[in-house]
Amino acid sequence: MSLAASFAEPQVAERVEVGLGARAYDILIGPGLLASAGERIAALGARTVGVVTDENVARLHLATVERSLAAAGLGFSTVTVPAGEPSKSFGRLSEVVDGLLAARIERGDVVLALGGGVVGDLAGFAAAILRRGVRCVQAPTSLLAQVDSSVGGKTGINSVRGKNLIGAFHQPSLVLADVDALDTLPPRELRAGYAEVVKYGLIDDPAFFAWLEARPRAAFEPGQDRIRAIATSCRAKAAVVARDEHETGDRALLNLGHTFGHALEADVAYDGARLIHGEGVAIGMAMAFRFSVSLGLCPPEDAARVERHLEAVGLPTSPKAIPGGVGSADVLFGHMQQDKKVSRGRLTFILARGIGRSFVAKDVDPAAALAFLKRELA
Amino acid sequence: MSLAASFAEPQVAERVEVGLGARAYDILIGPGLLASAGERIAALGARTVGVVTDENVARLHLATVERSLAAAGLGFSTVTVPAGEPSKSFGRLSEVVDGLLAARIERGDVVLALGGGVVGDLAGFAAAILRRGVRCVQAPTSLLAQVDSSVGGKTGINSVRGKNLIGAFHQPSLVLADVDALDTLPPRELRAGYAEVVKYGLIDDPAFFAWLEARPRAAFEPGQDRIRAIATSCRAKAAVVARDEHETGDRALLNLGHTFGHALEADVAYDGARLIHGEGVAIGMAMAFRFSVSLGLCPPEDAARVERHLEAVGLPTSPKAIPGGVGSADVLFGHMQQDKKVSRGRLTFILARGIGRSFVAKDVDPAAALAFLKRELA
Repeated sequence: MSLAASFAEPQVAERVEVGLGARAYDILIGPGLLASAGERIAALGARTVGVVTDENVARLHLATVERSLAAAGLGFSTVTVPAGEPSKSFGRLSEVVDGLLAARIERGDVVLALGGGVVGDLAGFAAAILRRGVRCVQAPTSLLAQVDSSVGGKTGINSVRGKNLIGAFHQPSLVLADVDALDTLPPRELRAGYAEVVKYGLIDDPAFFAWLEARPRAAFEPGQDRIRAIATSCRAKAAVVARDEHETGDRALLNLGHTFGHALEADVAYDGARLIHGEGVAIGMAMAFRFSVSLGLCPPEDAARVERHLEAVGLPTSPKAIPGGVGSADVLFGHMQQDKKVSRGRLTFILARGIGRSFVAKDVDPAAALAFLKRELA
Repeated sequence: MSLAASFAEPQVAERVEVGLGARAYDILIGPGLLASAGERIAALGARTVGVVTDENVARLHLATVERSLAAAGLGFSTVTVPAGEPSKSFGRLSEVVDGLLAARIERGDVVLALGGGVVGDLAGFAAAILRRGVRCVQAPTSLLAQVDSSVGGKTGINSVRGKNLIGAFHQPSLVLADVDALDTLPPRELRAGYAEVVKYGLIDDPAFFAWLEARPRAAFEPGQDRIRAIATSCRAKAAVVARDEHETGDRALLNLGHTFGHALEADVAYDGARLIHGEGVAIGMAMAFRFSVSLGLCPPEDAARVERHLEAVGLPTSPKAIPGGVGSADVLFGHMQQDKKVSRGRLTFILARGIGRSFVAKDVDPAAALAFLKRELA
């Protein structure tokens, strides 16, 4: 536990269940969970654990996890990949799978994804395709991964043609969200992850958004408020996933801010120095609200409140905030058309009638979207 | 229809349903099915088809299929890979997925696997991971693929550490087994595929085995007997798959002959000039019966009948029949231990108490298996 945490109120772990019948699993959110990973994984009946992590996370947390695995009597080996989005590639996937095969991870064993969203997506996908599927435990160490990517079973890698275009639905068997790990994050990453927390308020929980507005530091400092913010986010995501595991309907709501956000990330060629995922989502959500206003769907005051709260925590809200700028509206529009959510060439947007009143809009007029992009970049 | 077929009795298509609830699908077995692929795929609601095939099959059947797709008003593009097992690699998978993304295959569209087992496994896996899963129609053109690999949803690629160690369960939406395609197969491939037909008799259908014994040419010549042999095989496989989709129990019976067979294939480094999959299965089944005899489980007459029938159609029954020979018993044993079916280091074999009386044997004494291998190679 960090020094700051030791002065805060005592922290109590929360538990969120993802109700998926035979594939139901728990998300645990609290302090000290990495140190208990071994006993919890042993309780799943695994004998050997293939740990997948990145260089940064390995430096900070691998020793804790390996000690815990050894103490629980588990065999383990570790595959470490470079930190950052470029690791979500076919080449790296093939290395990870080969490492897990070399470690003789069998069908009854477990892959432990120890890291942020990149490691979770890559290791989860590797687990999905190793021997046609072995179990995965997610130990997300970034805020983004704790509230979003580690929950719900989406795994995958990127293609030169777009983000996450290759992957699998593979639900984890357990998620261990150790909030202590958040104290080791660079502030920019913590902020970026917070965009996904805000998202859950914007989708369908205006009271949560108001709660966050009143506590703009909640997610940024140790304490029960942070655990509550993460647990509320996970609960929101779990409810959507339980309703629509494979994104044939409602689950698309979770993409609020992502259609624009992914296009922006593609535009900067996933250069994390210029834009990281959560920043793209922050800009994308602000854009989705402004686009909703321009279509006459959403009161301008709500879009302004969204911008104000994001800016209060230091998140960007305009594509013009991206260092070096972005390409033309036409280029962004082209990226959006390669989105997975494109159906028969029609664009799907998540739009909003107000804060907490988001909805899936199919058949948005492409000309209106293009005109909006032109105004945003003008 | 081939010239031979035109002199045979009229052929009538059979239909086998794979009962998997929401993922149930039909296997159609009969003549002229490739020419009707377009209308059948259009009936699934697809707009665009990503055809995956290999160079040999493209030469023989692609024009027929593309004509049919065009006539049904479907858009399509084709990705062609080299023929042969080496195409089941990460590198080739990444090319195929990229080709399908370039063709803008969307979630509502269809990947059409046109070819033998290699193409079916590779294209099926590509469909499983493209945008986290698009539908796949299997159009198997080899006997092996028609009776085995196109049915049941196992897809995947090979690792240097073993065959099919990387993959997914991804059920097809439809299987079109055009028996006319069998007339274009090299005799060696047709024979190899026949090993899997025999397998269904050996697993649990002694009457089917006797029917085949009485008609050793059934699968090798056009006519209703061939369609019946294929449909009986598909029905047997469909029943097992419906009971145990993800191979947690019974489905392992389908691996009769495969534990030994895969080890032999690994031993020759998947060199098709020396051993192709069905030949490995033929040898493996004969070995499984001899091993069962040596364990006192199976009457020697039954093992002899198995050998006799396989030899009657020109299939090998001993590892010593492999050109160039194989490695030592220890090396083969090592390959067997990397098998996906290994659970906690224990070997699982499919053994037999007689023809049509196969069973899953866990905890086979490794020393007995090793001693058996030594006798086989002596």
